[in-house]
Amino acid sequence: MTSEDPRPRGDVFSAVCPSRRLLADIAGKWPLLVLDALSGGEVRTGDLRRRVDGISQRMLTETLNRLITMNLVTRHSRASVPPHVTYMLTPLGADLVVQIGALDRWVEDNLYAMLDDPGTPS
Amino acid sequence: MTSEDPRPRGDVFSAVCPSRRLLADIAGKWPLLVLDALSGGEVRTGDLRRRVDGISQRMLTETLNRLITMNLVTRHSRASVPPHVTYMLTPLGADLVVQIGALDRWVEDNLYAMLDDPGTPS
Repeated sequence: MTSEDPRPRGDVFSAVCPSRRLLADIAGKWPLLVLDALSGGEVRTGDLRRRVDGISQRMLTETLNRLITMNLVTRHSRASVPPHVTYMLTPLGADLVVQIGALDRWVEDNLYAMLDDPGTPS
Repeated sequence: MTSEDPRPRGDVFSAVCPSRRLLADIAGKWPLLVLDALSGGEVRTGDLRRRVDGISQRMLTETLNRLITMNLVTRHSRASVPPHVTYMLTPLGADLVVQIGALDRWVEDNLYAMLDDPGTPS
């Protein structure tokens, strides 16, 4: 095997490329917000749920499990009373969150430009 | 009115902030792919549908209409036989597509890192 990866490059425009499914798994409001909320470091489950306002416990668990499967997030459980469960980004997740944070901040910064009626003089 | 925008800044983490809904409207695989497909300039409907492999005509129309409402895309129709309808990014959409293109390329570039079983030696 050479140092060049012989596997084909991803193409999100192709319906049959696995990168299309991965994009769909990342590109929902919940995965984007959960990843963004983990950008500051290790977070406990309850704090994560409070940070991502409106997410249900079930949706949070499902989202985290999917992100773990994609090697973007890791779960840490410490044997203590009460149990202490935290989540943090993997190095891969930390790299992705640079793109996601930029997208989230862009939406916040351009909120009114997207809401404005283009027929209304500004 | 001062030169500072007196309206509150967006916060996608807040369930009641309009930026949350806007993020959800942008952050689906179809809006991300349609915006990305428009990054090269004006595109005819049929070419757009071929580029975004797997999208239905109905989903393409719905996605484009939502993006038009958000001031991200404009529709151009020329009176000709056959009718010639094209779509292109607004300046706001062109600014957003920088973030979206970066996210899409990241997913393509990191495809195998997300698919790999972390238990498997690389």
